[in-house]
Amino acid sequence: MRIALLGGTGDIGRGLALRWGRDADHELLIGSRDPEKARERADDYTAELEERGVEAAFKGFENAMAADRADVVVLAVPAYHLVDTVEAVADRLDGDTVLVTPAVGMQRDEDGFHYNRPGAGSVATLAAGAKPDDVPLVGAFHNLPAAGLADLDNEFDWDTLVFGDDDDAKATVSQLAAEIDGLRPLDAGTIANAPEIEAVTPLLINVAMNNDDLHDLGVKFW
Amino acid sequence: MRIALLGGTGDIGRGLALRWGRDADHELLIGSRDPEKARERADDYTAELEERGVEAAFKGFENAMAADRADVVVLAVPAYHLVDTVEAVADRLDGDTVLVTPAVGMQRDEDGFHYNRPGAGSVATLAAGAKPDDVPLVGAFHNLPAAGLADLDNEFDWDTLVFGDDDDAKATVSQLAAEIDGLRPLDAGTIANAPEIEAVTPLLINVAMNNDDLHDLGVKFW
Repeated sequence: MRIALLGGTGDIGRGLALRWGRDADHELLIGSRDPEKARERADDYTAELEERGVEAAFKGFENAMAADRADVVVLAVPAYHLVDTVEAVADRLDGDTVLVTPAVGMQRDEDGFHYNRPGAGSVATLAAGAKPDDVPLVGAFHNLPAAGLADLDNEFDWDTLVFGDDDDAKATVSQLAAEIDGLRPLDAGTIANAPEIEAVTPLLINVAMNNDDLHDLGVKFW
Repeated sequence: MRIALLGGTGDIGRGLALRWGRDADHELLIGSRDPEKARERADDYTAELEERGVEAAFKGFENAMAADRADVVVLAVPAYHLVDTVEAVADRLDGDTVLVTPAVGMQRDEDGFHYNRPGAGSVATLAAGAKPDDVPLVGAFHNLPAAGLADLDNEFDWDTLVFGDDDDAKATVSQLAAEIDGLRPLDAGTIANAPEIEAVTPLLINVAMNNDDLHDLGVKFW
């Protein structure tokens, strides 16, 4: 499968790229608005896995070029760039492409981080409104700490909540999630259930901030 | 310590009562609007623990009477009864009483359960607005499945997030939480952080509804 990580030069994009590069067998396209930066970062990821004796084929592209070639397009961009990013690649997507949003809107005040719920209902709903109608959207990978994900020496046992209105697309993304060692995908229903999932990310940061012995927190449901 | 469980005849109240009765050593006051029902339920809890060879002293009272005698008052009532319950016992509380809210507002639609965030900001903020100013309020025990908590044969390893604006009161409640076998209290900051914590409860229900092999879910952060 070809997976494009738009904003794949950022924190969560790096983590997903390295984990899939090490644990799975896909063609990984690193996307950025700046194609030169995308290529540099793709080379970095390739080198990092080579050091670990893993051969992985990262390639860097401008976002729209990456999306054009991919079966699955992960929007690994900050929430405030999400709609722009979807619009910039929209004409490269079709009904066979699965769009994935891990994006969360947060704001910080003196008490901690808070979920900044968009008027549309959720960040996922914003992405859904910007994409072509026939392209399925799936939410996943929201509640993973970027640093803990990108550090390949870090072994974890985390859940990721997968939601969306298209069951086939959800199954595809759940399969990709399950291929990452230590990650368990759980079905969290439809896009209407996105707000409670997106809100877990600021909660994880607040818990880490308030407990000295905890950092880079993920979550497990049982 | 004397702990009053207002609404202690309900699901979450029963779970906390039985767990503290078995695992800790406190005087447990079961509160209800109906004192006769409170006494009956207190006798039931006493009998259930006796069957397990545990001697525990549950006593039933009308809510205000239970609150009057307690060091810690847990508002184990539905969110829509929370403000009424606080107002009904307010003149029995003082600065030495710690008030605890585990209450969550939810609504259900065809997609699942959703956090019904009050205009005040959170359910905890509603309780804070109804209590006397000098009584500290702590949030805890939100994300515990009532049935899994009340079933004493069920061994668990769950976290509970404790929040509030008074550090001493938080420490008291964290200690009480830690006395329950398998429960780890985590500091989640101030009452401003309540919405993200209260929102986890409908999320747990949605995840259980959408995954056949999961039920009575709690959560662990790591």
